[in-house]
Order: sequence, then structure tokens, then C-alpha cells
Amino acid sequence: MDVAEPLVRHPRDVVVRVTRSAICGTDLHPYRGELPGFAEGTVMGHEFAGVVHEVGDEAPFRAGERVFASDVVACGRCVRCRRGWHYQCPEVGLFGYDTVVGASLPGGQAEFVRVPFADVVLERTPDDVSDEQAVFVGDVLSTAYAAVSDAAVTPGDTVAVVGAGPVGLLAAVCASVAGAARVVLADPVPERRERAADHGFEAVEPGALSAVLHTGAADGAERVIEAVGSDAALVCALHAAAVHGTVVAVGVHHSAATPFPAGLSFARELTLRFCVGDPIRLRDRVLALIRAGRVDPATVVSHRLSLDEAPLAYRAFDRQEIFKAILIH
Amino acid sequence: MDVAEPLVRHPRDVVVRVTRSAICGTDLHPYRGELPGFAEGTVMGHEFAGVVHEVGDEAPFRAGERVFASDVVACGRCVRCRRGWHYQCPEVGLFGYDTVVGASLPGGQAEFVRVPFADVVLERTPDDVSDEQAVFVGDVLSTAYAAVSDAAVTPGDTVAVVGAGPVGLLAAVCASVAGAARVVLADPVPERRERAADHGFEAVEPGALSAVLHTGAADGAERVIEAVGSDAALVCALHAAAVHGTVVAVGVHHSAATPFPAGLSFARELTLRFCVGDPIRLRDRVLALIRAGRVDPATVVSHRLSLDEAPLAYRAFDRQEIFKAILIH
Amino acid sequence: MDVAEPLVRHPRDVVVRVTRSAICGTDLHPYRGELPGFAEGTVMGHEFAGVVHEVGDEAPFRAGERVFASDVVACGRCVRCRRGWHYQCPEVGLFGYDTVVGASLPGGQAEFVRVPFADVVLERTPDDVSDEQAVFVGDVLSTAYAAVSDAAVTPGDTVAVVGAGPVGLLAAVCASVAGAARVVLADPVPERRERAADHGFEAVEPGALSAVLHTGAADGAERVIEAVGSDAALVCALHAAAVHGTVVAVGVHHSAATPFPAGLSFARELTLRFCVGDPIRLRDRVLALIRAGRVDPATVVSHRLSLDEAPLAYRAFDRQEIFKAILIH
Amino acid sequence: MDVAEPLVRHPRDVVVRVTRSAICGTDLHPYRGELPGFAEGTVMGHEFAGVVHEVGDEAPFRAGERVFASDVVACGRCVRCRRGWHYQCPEVGLFGYDTVVGASLPGGQAEFVRVPFADVVLERTPDDVSDEQAVFVGDVLSTAYAAVSDAAVTPGDTVAVVGAGPVGLLAAVCASVAGAARVVLADPVPERRERAADHGFEAVEPGALSAVLHTGAADGAERVIEAVGSDAALVCALHAAAVHGTVVAVGVHHSAATPFPAGLSFARELTLRFCVGDPIRLRDRVLALIRAGRVDPATVVSHRLSLDEAPLAYRAFDRQEIFKAILIH
Repeated sequence: MDVAEPLVRHPRDVVVRVTRSAICGTDLHPYRGELPGFAEGTVMGHEFAGVVHEVGDEAPFRAGERVFASDVVACGRCVRCRRGWHYQCPEVGLFGYDTVVGASLPGGQAEFVRVPFADVVLERTPDDVSDEQAVFVGDVLSTAYAAVSDAAVTPGDTVAVVGAGPVGLLAAVCASVAGAARVVLADPVPERRERAADHGFEAVEPGALSAVLHTGAADGAERVIEAVGSDAALVCALHAAAVHGTVVAVGVHHSAATPFPAGLSFARELTLRFCVGDPIRLRDRVLALIRAGRVDPATVVSHRLSLDEAPLAYRAFDRQEIFKAILIH
Repeated sequence: MDVAEPLVRHPRDVVVRVTRSAICGTDLHPYRGELPGFAEGTVMGHEFAGVVHEVGDEAPFRAGERVFASDVVACGRCVRCRRGWHYQCPEVGLFGYDTVVGASLPGGQAEFVRVPFADVVLERTPDDVSDEQAVFVGDVLSTAYAAVSDAAVTPGDTVAVVGAGPVGLLAAVCASVAGAARVVLADPVPERRERAADHGFEAVEPGALSAVLHTGAADGAERVIEAVGSDAALVCALHAAAVHGTVVAVGVHHSAATPFPAGLSFARELTLRFCVGDPIRLRDRVLALIRAGRVDPATVVSHRLSLDEAPLAYRAFDRQEIFKAILIH
Repeated sequence: MDVAEPLVRHPRDVVVRVTRSAICGTDLHPYRGELPGFAEGTVMGHEFAGVVHEVGDEAPFRAGERVFASDVVACGRCVRCRRGWHYQCPEVGLFGYDTVVGASLPGGQAEFVRVPFADVVLERTPDDVSDEQAVFVGDVLSTAYAAVSDAAVTPGDTVAVVGAGPVGLLAAVCASVAGAARVVLADPVPERRERAADHGFEAVEPGALSAVLHTGAADGAERVIEAVGSDAALVCALHAAAVHGTVVAVGVHHSAATPFPAGLSFARELTLRFCVGDPIRLRDRVLALIRAGRVDPATVVSHRLSLDEAPLAYRAFDRQEIFKAILIH
Repeated sequence: MDVAEPLVRHPRDVVVRVTRSAICGTDLHPYRGELPGFAEGTVMGHEFAGVVHEVGDEAPFRAGERVFASDVVACGRCVRCRRGWHYQCPEVGLFGYDTVVGASLPGGQAEFVRVPFADVVLERTPDDVSDEQAVFVGDVLSTAYAAVSDAAVTPGDTVAVVGAGPVGLLAAVCASVAGAARVVLADPVPERRERAADHGFEAVEPGALSAVLHTGAADGAERVIEAVGSDAALVCALHAAAVHGTVVAVGVHHSAATPFPAGLSFARELTLRFCVGDPIRLRDRVLALIRAGRVDPATVVSHRLSLDEAPLAYRAFDRQEIFKAILIH
């Protein structure tokens, strides 16, 4: 589709020429028409990297610099931003997601994209980090890191991850980097379990997770990460937890009435934390791990296609034939 | 009812002559017959203080010493006890609660009570702490303190407490002692709201809690304590929380399918902690607060009766005519 | 002295007409000529409140609004500011302290003062907070709060405070608000000990502190705040600490070779934190405590004088005849 | 030297037949005669593993079980032990160290050793952990782990370790396991730097550490571990730290007047924690890491000798010709 080229509209804006973008599981909801009122013709995509094209007067960038954006936009100056709570900023927006999260903001699955609050939202891509890797820092990998950080994974822990999609798999990677002695992933899809096993992790069906963890020798997972966003996944995660364990729900939840095992959670004295992730706050850490060779998010890419092939990519992604697609612009 | 006088059966046992005991909301479940299989004739009562009567060979007490017990019994020596997780001890038991929690253990609403693992479960009552106050250290006040501690209340916080029973009211007191700038209690019972107001707290109906907290000037409660144990109370507590807030559920939960607002919890990035309380771990702190005059749990006592009047007390308590009863032995 | 009226020089600047300022112990160093190279004629004063007089284009204030400033100036936008480390900002400055801390910045003991980065440095004074109280939020009280917060004072703690000057005394107040069961101040000056006693605290000579805390019944202070900044005070603080205790040094230290009891610190497994304080990060919390009536910093004011009397005030303050002076402009 | 075979003297005792022991740097102090009053003829050695030989009535072990001991002995039942502060137990002792730390307790560089409080001090060696590895869990590796844990190393951190002896080197290993993006060791001994480099770490002279860390691109180490116990090492560690950094001193300090850079520590707002280590509390975690293949302490062993060769080993160790010696019994 042809759309008007975005322009700098505010002194803090930067227009980025996109070189790489990715399709996220979240993008499937509007694709499937599950979000009534989502504006037809919205430019999708909240995961992208590229090159600075045009710069507002107050944006501290120069044309030609390699950059990547946070998926979430925040002003960086309000009380909540000062606390590092960028997702809670009154100016919050998600690129390419119409008005579902905050203001309408055309996304990065396009030639150009306008990035507001660029001094906060945009970051330079270091020389030794590829654009493809940077795409992950702007969302999936920072989200995975946030989950592991909020779960306070410490060396020696047993960690369970419910959901072996890109976020779950990278959460398992991050948990391992944080010293987990054992990481077990749970996913109903055999291909995803195989992929997890290829990464060196135990992988089981969700129904088997609790049994695998609560054996004579073991006692549940001290840390559990739920990376799906469904009721079933959250319940599965809680059952996997050891007494005094911590469960971090990093999957996007919408339900107003998840059937929650409060009795079990009380009996085990669990902690449950809901975690959105925050590339603005965490990208320094995540970049340090990539640059040190501790994490390479490119290992979760299953397909690389051209931007023109995006419709095809969406179709295949929706059918679960694609694990994670990178679009080359 | 006449029962055989308890005897020292193990070298770590102490038999205590009870001087004061209390009736807890938890006691109403067996009283009402809500626990099928609960043994007829069980000596009730997990809140009590008294005087050492008989001492096992390995129990570090002397006859005549004033003491109080933790409501929960734990061995103090296993891996979980070493971590301070006494409620998770394989030897756990709750006095007077038949086999619902751990082993059967006759309770303290009696002339004498056998206390196992007395070196761990029993504590000396300081000279400047009354037996009545000590009864609270053994359960209600330590539970309230645990909730405030797990919620990490810090000076300047706004704290909401759902449920203005004895635990909730003392949690409000502890939150205030921990520096809360504002404490709001929610309870459907007008008398409980009045009592809370008499203690100097705001008190509202549960349905009004969220509105009172989320106003133009305010933004929800940074810390919320749920001290009821029902689905409705937990949901109410989650709604009262500010973004990035912490909710501590210290009420006893049994449900396998609480209708849980996962969407709201995710959108606000909440933390939810289930907290049983632990007098063994916390009694030193709680005693220090009583001795310093910072907290006096006796202020929540509404009735003092003789042990003979216990049946009457149960009946009135069940009808909510009694807020908190102390039995004088 | 007559000086040129400060003007808005940058869009983020605000010029404030000062109504109240205070003299801080830190001001005595240049007054005594202890800082070689400190510019003659510097307008002193980093504690002040007043009314917005002139506003830069990007400063979100209106003329006439009541405001107070943070003692420390920071840009609010760099990586360190984003972490809440305002004192570590490359643009850091201390009002009225020449170039000792960061850039030269005329202070607030004047009719008018230019406040840079006003969107970050300046805060509105709530209606129910006086200008005098606001002066304390901009430095002394926020520093005291920071010390108590960094020490992680929790209900039931025994807290020692070395130094009963305004910061130490307000740290004791904050420790009490945070639930300390016992607070002991140490100061060599009898008048300061009396003032501490008038506030309801134990107060002893520094040489007696350790003995008072390490008795048969007690075991040192779990939390110690050092609010002087001398070698002797730091050593005194470390000796006062209980095993596994935390010492927070909030006094300004300059020494390169403080004679430090490393052996004792290791044997007791102590934690020592150096804490500058940060009104920008903490003023919301501190204001909440004042507005709730939990803390009133005005109780530490010993003298109120007119701005014209400032020379007199400095002289008397230097002779320790003044505890804390507020200048009325 | 022939000594009487140790016997069970208390019901909680176990006598262990030692199979492996190690010589610790701490052992050199009495060896060199640096501890006046240290009893001639003391059986040395606080790092050992072996097989249960004789069992007291209350010790939960059976003859023939493979076990290892904590270097530090603690009762496990007092208030301090309950908090997990075993080194602060009134019954504390260090095997083979006469009365320098607590009670006199013959050590493990012998055929047999009596282990008091065996239910607390002794742990079973898992099948997949060698006796040599278990020796390290009882002291050096648990100490290294404690340092990294107290420093709160998180993925992406830059970590500096001052001292590349066995504790420092294993602290570097643990920091890496905890996700450090960069680890730099400092040691004046070229062989130690080479060994560190062989383990894949950067290694520099202490004088160069600060410069290597504070460059244009970097900003000091977020976490610093001091694993020597000298004044110079502590000062070096503090200089290596980034602003708001944490320094953990795990080296044994004795000085009453270390020349401490308080000015720098204040300016950078550092945290300094003194950490003894605690195998009793941490061995579960450390064993999990060994069993998962995340850490193998055997990689730091430079020499394996027979017990008869112990005098030779001490001599060579004292001359720094041995890095870490294991004695085979």
C-alpha cells in the first residue's frame, strides 16, 4: 500500500528509514480482526531498526546514524517516566497499533516511520550490533530480559517458562544467562518444543510441566515465566511454581475473569508479577549482553523476507508456519 | 468438655498452662461444620499464652516461665525452616485445627496444651508484655505485620486494606507505623468501619474503595492488603492498586478458580503476593514494637470472657456480635 | 550586596522570587574560607522556596505559582538522570556553591534566583505546605528521608543516628516514622542532645553510643545513620552497628584516607552505603509525609531572621549559637 | 604427627573419615606464626570431604555416606542461625583454627575429624559431585558465590574482581554464570593473571584496573568483588567502582584503620558490603550449579598431593608455587 511519507511534526521527532522490521505475535490480533474498531489501513509494526532520515530541532541525532526504536513510546519527562515506568506514561503509544495502546502511531513495517520523543524512544545501534539484532532489543529481547529480571532469577535456580514462542525462548536464554541451573519450557506445539530443545533446553507439553518439576528430587520451579498471555498459560505457570516461588506474567493479558488458583497460590505463598517489558529502561543492559556475545537474538529468527512479502509472512505466521520473521526493507 | 491432661511426649515438648486464648475467624469454619471430616471433639484454639507447666528434656524452658506459642508448628530444622519458611515445613501443624493444616494437634482453648518443637514454637513473654498482648503476637499481629512487610510499605505510601476485621485493622495499624501517609480500610460491615474510624483511619464500603483512591489528585494505593480471603476481596484489592502497586493477600484463600482481573493486573503491572504470616520468624520484631509502645493489639479486643463462656463467645462471634474475644482461663 | 537581577537565559529556566531560604552547615565551609578558589561574591544558598517570577518558553510553570527548588540541579534527561541518579548528572550543580559541585550557579539567599532545568529542579508547593516547610523538602528533609530509605529502616528496628544537627535530627524523625522501635542520637554538643531529647529521642555523647546499644539485652543498632561527614563520626557509626547491620553515611565526606575499621566491619558483616540525598527523586514522598501530618520540618527551626540579617545569622551559626536559621525575604 | 582418633562426644556429632582436603590461604597465617597464641600441634584444615565413620545419636547420617563439611561450625538453632547468620552464631568455630574464630576445633587435614552440630554443618555429597568438588562447596566456592550474590550481579553487568587467587577466580566464574557481560580480574602476580586469562577473563595489574574500567566508553564496574583482605585491595576495589556501584569485600580483613577513600565513596554514592560467606546457607545453590555443569571448581586446582606431602605443600603454597592444593587422604 502507498502511504504518505511521514514528516517531522514536532521538534523531538525523528523520521527513520527502516532497514529491518519484525512481525510480532501481537500483530496477529488486528490481522485476524480481533480488535473491533482498529483502523483499516493502519501501518503495522512495532519492532524495527534503520537509519536516521530527518531530525527535529530538539532530537539529538544526525541523519545517517543507525538507530532502533522502543516498541513503546513515552515522553520521558513525566512523573511516571522518571520512575522508569514508561508503559504508564500518559503519552504512551505502541507503533502500528492504532489506538489500542495510547495514541495512534503509524508503525515500522514501512519504508519510513516517524518516531516521537526520539531522544527517549530511539537509541543508536552500536557498530558491533546488527540491525536485525537491534530489532529484538526494541521489543522481544528486552521483554524477555524484563521477565527474567522481575523474576529475580539467581544462579542455581530452576526456571520454568510457559510458552516457547520467541519471547518464551529468549526468556529461557536470558534465564540461562542469569545462572539458572535448569530451564524447562512448556508448549503444546511440537515444533516449538523441538526448537527449544535445539537451543539446549528441556521442553515438555504444558500438561506435563508440573509433573516434571515436582518430583521426589525436585520441588517445583523457583521462578516461572508465563510468556503466552492466556488463562491456561497463567494457571499452568502457577502450578509449576515451587513454594515461595515467583511467577512473572509477561504475556499480554486481557481477561477480566481468569479462573485463578488462589488456594494453591496461598498454600505455596507465591508471588505473581505482571510485567510489560520496557526497552527504554533495559536496552543498555540488553545491548551489553549482545555485545559481549552472551545472547544472540538472531538465533530465534526462522524466516527472512522482503518487505513486499509481508502479506505472505502474515499469512504463514498466522498459520504458525513461521516462528519469527524478519522483514528486509 | 473434660479431656485428658496433655503430657510431654517428646523431649522437645512443653506443656503450657493456658492463661489467655483467643477465638480466630478461622475457628468459625469448623464451628459451622464447613470442614467435612473435621474430628468431633477437637480442642480448638491456635492463639494462646500461658505459663510453662511441664518441660521435655530438650526444651530450653523452666516451669513457671511466661510463654506464648506460634499458631503454626514447625520443626525448625529442615531445609524449609532454615529458609524461614515455617508454614512449608513437612511437620507443619495448626493448633486445634485437626488435620486440615498438617498433623492433628489439640488447641489452646483449654486448661493445658502440649506444644511440640517448643524450642522453636514457644517464646518467652517479656515482663512488659501482657499475656493478652502475647496472644496476638502468636498469630493476628504477626500476620498483620507480615502483610505490611511483604507489601514493603514505606514512608509516604498510600495503603488500602480490604477487610476491617482484627487482621485488617492491625494491618492498618502496622502500615501506619511503617510510615503510610494515608490508610484506607474497606469493609461492608458498618460497625467495622466505625471501629476503623475510631482508630483514626478512613473507612469505606468495598464498592467505594477504588473511587476514593483513584481521584484526580490520587492515583490508587501503592500498597494494598487483602485481609479477608474471599474472591470478592481479592478482586477489590487489585482494583484499588496504583500502577506498579503491590497487593498482599493475607486472607486465607481456598478457591481453585477465583475470577481474576488479569487484564487490569497486566495493564497496571501489578505484583501480587500471597502471605501466610509467620510468628516464629517475626515475633521478635512484633514484640519490639509492642514494648516500644508503637503498637498495642489490645485495642482490637472487644470482649473478654471466661473460658467457660467459650460456647457463648463462639455463638456471638459467628453472628458478628463480637469483633475479637479473649478468653480468660 | 547588590547584584544584577537574574534573567531567564535558557528556555527551561525559571526565575524565582525567593520568600524563604535557609542556611545549611555546608555553607559554613566557604564562609570560613575553607574552600580555596571559591569565588568572592558568590550568592550563597541552596535551600529556598518562593514564587515564580519569570518563565522560559519550555518551563511548565506560570508566574505567581508557589515553588521550591532542589538543592542539586540536574538535566533530567541523561542516562544517569533516567536512573534517578541526579547527583551524578554531568550537568550537576549546587546552588550558591561556586564550582565546588558542578557548574557555578548563584544561590537563593537573594531576592531572585535563576533555576535551570526548572521542569526537573523546581516543584510546585502544595497549598497545605508552607514555604518554610518547602525549603526543607528541597534539601535537609529529603536528605534525611534518603538516609532512612537507603538504610531500609523497617518497623521494630533499633536505629542510631550519629550527629544531632538538622539532618541527623530529621533522620531520627524519619526513622521513627518508618517504624523504628528505638532511636538513639549521638552528638558531642549538649544543646543538640537536649533538642533531640525534646523531640522525644534518647541522646548520648558519641563515646557512649556503642555502650548504650551493645548491652546484655540489646545487640547494636540494625540501622545506623551518620549525618556529620567526619572520620570520627563514620567510625562511631560503624561501631554502633549490630551484626549484619547497615550504616548509611549521609554526611558529606571529603577524606581520601579515613581510618576505617575494616576488621570490625568484616567480623560483623556490615553494609555501608554512601548517600547524597536527592530531592528531585524523593520530594513526592516527603511532601506526602508533611501533608499527612507525619513530619513537620519546621520543628527544627531555631531562628527566623530577615534576609538583611543574613550576615548576623552566618556569624551566629558559625559559633553554633543557631541550630537552623530560616531567612525571611 | 600422630594424634588421638577423634570420637563422638555429643549426640549431634559425626566423625568423618576424610578423603580429600585442601589448604586455604587462611591457613598460612598460623603456618607463618603470624597468630600469637595459636596452639602448637593444632590439626589444621577447614576444607574437607569424606565418608561418615561414626554417628552420634541425634545426627541424621549413616556410616558410609559421602559427606562434606562447612568450614564454619554453627549450632543452627539460635536466633542468629535462624536468620541464616551462621558466622555470627555464639557457638561459631572454624575447623583447625584453634581459638581464633570461636572454639578450638581440630581440622580436616587428618585421617578423621569430629564434626559438631553435624545435622547443620555436614551435608551429603550427591552422587554426581566428586569429593574434590565437595571440598570447594564447603568453603571457597560458596564464598565466591556469596560475594557475587551479595553484589547482586545481574545480566549485563561489568564486574571487577580484585585478587585472582582461588576465591577471586571462582568469584569471576560465578559472576560470569550470573550474567556479567564483562569480568576483569586484578592481581599483581603474573602467573595468577595468566591463570585468569586461561579461564577466559581479562586480567590486569591492580594499578591498571581503574584505568581499564573508566574509559570513554565505560564508566567503572557496577559490581566489584575484593577477594584479598588487604587495605590496598579494598582501596583498589573502591576506585574500580562505577557511580552507584556495589563493592563486596569477601577477603578477610583485620585492620582497625584501613586508609579509606570516604570522599570518593561519597561522591560516587557507593555501597560496600563485608561478606564472610556461608556454606551452610548457600551449599544447595552451589551444588545445583555444579550438578548442572555450570561451575566446576576443580578447574582451579593446581596440585594434588597425598596427605603425607602436606608439609611440602604448605612450604610451596607459602612461596606461591602452588595455586590451590588438594590433599588426597
